[in-house]
Amino acid sequence: MKKYIYIYSPSGAVRDKVAFKRGIKRLQTLGHEVEVDVDALTSHQRFAGDDATRLAAIHRAADSGADVALISRGGYGLTRLLPDIRFKKIAKAIDKGLQFVGMSDFTAFQSALLAKTGAITWAGPALGEGFGVEGTPDEIMEACFDDMLCGQGEGAGWRQARKSVANTSKDIATNPEDIRAEGSFDIQDAVLWGGNLTVLTTLLGTPYFPNIKGGILFLEDVAEHPYRVERMLTQLLYAGVFKRQKAVVLGQFTDFKLTPHDRGFNMGTVGQWLRQAIKAPVLTNLPYGHVQTKVLLPVGARTDLSVNSRGALLVWGHV
Amino acid sequence: MKKYIYIYSPSGAVRDKVAFKRGIKRLQTLGHEVEVDVDALTSHQRFAGDDATRLAAIHRAADSGADVALISRGGYGLTRLLPDIRFKKIAKAIDKGLQFVGMSDFTAFQSALLAKTGAITWAGPALGEGFGVEGTPDEIMEACFDDMLCGQGEGAGWRQARKSVANTSKDIATNPEDIRAEGSFDIQDAVLWGGNLTVLTTLLGTPYFPNIKGGILFLEDVAEHPYRVERMLTQLLYAGVFKRQKAVVLGQFTDFKLTPHDRGFNMGTVGQWLRQAIKAPVLTNLPYGHVQTKVLLPVGARTDLSVNSRGALLVWGHV
Repeated sequence: MKKYIYIYSPSGAVRDKVAFKRGIKRLQTLGHEVEVDVDALTSHQRFAGDDATRLAAIHRAADSGADVALISRGGYGLTRLLPDIRFKKIAKAIDKGLQFVGMSDFTAFQSALLAKTGAITWAGPALGEGFGVEGTPDEIMEACFDDMLCGQGEGAGWRQARKSVANTSKDIATNPEDIRAEGSFDIQDAVLWGGNLTVLTTLLGTPYFPNIKGGILFLEDVAEHPYRVERMLTQLLYAGVFKRQKAVVLGQFTDFKLTPHDRGFNMGTVGQWLRQAIKAPVLTNLPYGHVQTKVLLPVGARTDLSVNSRGALLVWGHV
Repeated sequence: MKKYIYIYSPSGAVRDKVAFKRGIKRLQTLGHEVEVDVDALTSHQRFAGDDATRLAAIHRAADSGADVALISRGGYGLTRLLPDIRFKKIAKAIDKGLQFVGMSDFTAFQSALLAKTGAITWAGPALGEGFGVEGTPDEIMEACFDDMLCGQGEGAGWRQARKSVANTSKDIATNPEDIRAEGSFDIQDAVLWGGNLTVLTTLLGTPYFPNIKGGILFLEDVAEHPYRVERMLTQLLYAGVFKRQKAVVLGQFTDFKLTPHDRGFNMGTVGQWLRQAIKAPVLTNLPYGHVQTKVLLPVGARTDLSVNSRGALLVWGHV
């Protein structure tokens, strides 16, 4: 289905222009019309333009009349802009059918928007790392992107076992016993929210942190040592966030380096620590994060979660 | 003055036992009696013993009857223990004359204790990195440690100019104009608090974050890229912490690596961003952090701050 996709840069400067162009070409090959924001390739220090430039780009994306507003890349930059983003304007554009897609630094935007307006956005690929890869982009990611565009395939399933098709990466739960620890259960009509753990916890204690009760919280991160991941999880724990959730779903935690000092401390022990620290079930292995194979997830949408010994299934209504 | 110093390990496992022993010898050479906690060299994963072991060590330190309880090292581990630390017991021991000294991960303990009881502890060296260095430990650090022991020299001064004697490290304000931007002013009777930026912000939104109004907040960090430092500062900003402070004092931010992607973004631009974002004066260059030359600072103590074109002076009453 041909869609109109608006590419803009709210965070880091695009350095890999080859991947950027490849991504645009790929979207065009898939049959879409692509418009590139005038400042998508602007650079100021490490940012895609100064604060005013990136802010204007976000608001232009909202005004674009496009079907999808897709970030060029993540990085760092959205946190600085939060006080000046016109969230009501963004929410209105979403009401009219615009779907914002992104991840990583974009978690700041998505969480703040959810906190301020309740509007739904999509946790999913950025242009460069998603569609601009060398060779063919990941099949599952593209299929999920297409599902989002069509409003079909309203859910995402994955296996709780370790050798899941979608598990192309290190898994937070390395112990298969551990993975199956939660048994079978069903959760209905819970708000799905979350994203990048570091970016999300950076909003704790601020007006931009969503106050979601009875939700399903999903988390991923990249290049964060397990002890840092655990330290951030303690913050969510002590802030009372976990006790307000019906389930916690851990995605992919990748690209960190263990050291000889760790001596058995790893993502697996972090997962075990979390399980004994909170009452809500902790699922692992969600194919989402800084990996090629990932699903798209509607942040803020009412979602059902069904878990049994074979796997887990998230199902949302039409977004 | 001969004092009784208790060494214990609330955080990371001690791997550098040579530095540990050198540190003890140095304290003995300075005339002190040193007692080493039974689990000071215990190791479990990356921790100095499991949670129960480290928790017991903290409470033994409180019961020791020593003049000073000095951590062996920082690392990571205190955050996990916070719900089980008996803060009233710790505060009672402090009332009876025990002085807790430490830094880095110890910021979690110090901040939580301040939040829960108002008790004062010292931001200062750990045994290994402070007294256990090869050669002679830093003169200024040892003089400040001695001042603390004697209850003399109740303050710390430093130059605001770039080539301060104490500035052995990268300075967050690289622009001399910037450094002098705050002019002359005096602040009286404000609570001095703070420590490691990462550890402190990890407590935001939790019951362990001190709610200090009209305070002087000091911050340092190590191995955190300027963009990460800035992101953490945005959290303090949006949480309303800065607007409740009379001054912000930046110590040393060290051991990070800029990349070609940064293109002029650095600790200096972070300092500039902070100055325009908050009303309180931002001082720089405090000789405190993950550096050899550092002062000891009483976390939670009523403090005066006097600043003119030549430098800054923190003065606290007898702690």
